[in-house]
Amino acid sequence: MLKKVAIFGVGLIGGSFALALKRARAVQQVVGVGRTAATLERAREIGIVDAISTSVQEALQDTDLVLIAAPVAQTETILATIKPHLQAGTVITDAGSTKTDVVAAARKALGDKIGQFIPGHPIAGRESNGPDAAIADLYIGKKVVLAPLPENASADVERVAQAWQQCGALIHRLSPEEHDRVFAAVSHLPHLLAYALVDDVANKPHADLLFQYAASGFRDFTRIAGSSPEMWRDISLANQAALLQELDAYIAQLTKLRANLVAADGNALQQMFAHAQQARQSWIRTIEAAEKQNRNGGD
Amino acid sequence: MLKKVAIFGVGLIGGSFALALKRARAVQQVVGVGRTAATLERAREIGIVDAISTSVQEALQDTDLVLIAAPVAQTETILATIKPHLQAGTVITDAGSTKTDVVAAARKALGDKIGQFIPGHPIAGRESNGPDAAIADLYIGKKVVLAPLPENASADVERVAQAWQQCGALIHRLSPEEHDRVFAAVSHLPHLLAYALVDDVANKPHADLLFQYAASGFRDFTRIAGSSPEMWRDISLANQAALLQELDAYIAQLTKLRANLVAADGNALQQMFAHAQQARQSWIRTIEAAEKQNRNGGD
Repeated sequence: MLKKVAIFGVGLIGGSFALALKRARAVQQVVGVGRTAATLERAREIGIVDAISTSVQEALQDTDLVLIAAPVAQTETILATIKPHLQAGTVITDAGSTKTDVVAAARKALGDKIGQFIPGHPIAGRESNGPDAAIADLYIGKKVVLAPLPENASADVERVAQAWQQCGALIHRLSPEEHDRVFAAVSHLPHLLAYALVDDVANKPHADLLFQYAASGFRDFTRIAGSSPEMWRDISLANQAALLQELDAYIAQLTKLRANLVAADGNALQQMFAHAQQARQSWIRTIEAAEKQNRNGGD
Repeated sequence: MLKKVAIFGVGLIGGSFALALKRARAVQQVVGVGRTAATLERAREIGIVDAISTSVQEALQDTDLVLIAAPVAQTETILATIKPHLQAGTVITDAGSTKTDVVAAARKALGDKIGQFIPGHPIAGRESNGPDAAIADLYIGKKVVLAPLPENASADVERVAQAWQQCGALIHRLSPEEHDRVFAAVSHLPHLLAYALVDDVANKPHADLLFQYAASGFRDFTRIAGSSPEMWRDISLANQAALLQELDAYIAQLTKLRANLVAADGNALQQMFAHAQQARQSWIRTIEAAEKQNRNGGD
């Protein structure tokens, strides 16, 4: 059982972590830290945190585990304010969507205490944000990627892994570089593509007519274009290199598709569509099998 | 009340049209016509059609309305088999996703009887296909675009419009060219983009690792890549010109996005993302308001 957990950022991600730990009776006390007093107050009101603190020193006192669940661009500043108060027995983890930049920021901010920082990324979310969106179920059956550093003690990595497992999550491990390459392909690029399409349609002179006929296919395709522009600006910049590589591969793919369309090469088009359809179906079957196993094995 | 309706293709689209007309008591008899005996038998078994016919002559006898709900590439062949048996009192409509090519095919097949053909496109669908996927509710509150020709008598257009309205649909009108430009942007291009992304990911050497971390954002974005490859090959070829124009605009958009990413221009990125997010939110609000109005006004 964790005695004390401090959470920097008590929104959807940090708040759900707190609620899940509490429900699992895996923590005695959760302290919330953040920039916005109203958000912290709300988090206390609805039982996400037991106490709130505007003093980092106080929040860090005898704390087993710190979770940083603030926008990625703030990670370095938060870690720098933590460092002077960081006790030997405390481990820190984060929930950022990119890892290479977070590791660089952590090395800069923490210096010789870098061993106490275990980079992490829970793969879970909802459409809404803030403390009121937090739910104890958010991580059940979801993946949490840990990207341990050579300096991390395995017992510390284990402490972070166990906390997430007690939230119902499944632990995966990738290096920070692997993590960023993988998420550039399956998450960051699709977000950019969805934003680009909606922006493209909205900029056309007959945009109103177009939106009038957009239906459920368009709605699903562009759902991720409803995400926070600030967050995705930060992710794009933080994962610039891997994202550029994926974007270039995709533009090359569209150029090939365009050539097939110009040539009216029905076979080549159908082959690409069929390959994509099969790959997606096989992926969906894998997900559904895993979900079924989680349901049977869990709870 | 329609005395007799003949449906060529009794799958999801044709079958749902039949079920909806029957529930509204808007038709006395529905006859199914098609290439596959087993599909027709199934449609009769589950009450979609009252009779099945392998003779086009028999199916066309004293028929008020013909719906062609077969793959678009078959439209010309079907209309050519219909022509010799087409009586003066019969109107024909279709459910194809493209209209310019369908009109060209209809002119070729029907010649001086073209006035009896009213091009149409119901904007509705489900993930599954075939007669067993058909439901009487499919068209409730959904748009049906009619693209009437100069040769159509307004009473004939009205007959088609009324049939769809009795299925619960809302009638919109566009010219065949307008229709194809609009759907190239909001439907055909997104389908190609989704297929292209899944094919791109599936072709990478580490595809298995990538799919392992693909989550709900990827799932929604690529949902339309689960659609029929044959159907989307046909649509791509049928709407080649408008689709190329949209694809080129999108590649130009991605090229601009790429330049902003290379320059690490956070403001420009955020501006595009925010504009897209706002446009999407305002579109979703419009849809939700319309759905609410349909619910209050309908049923």
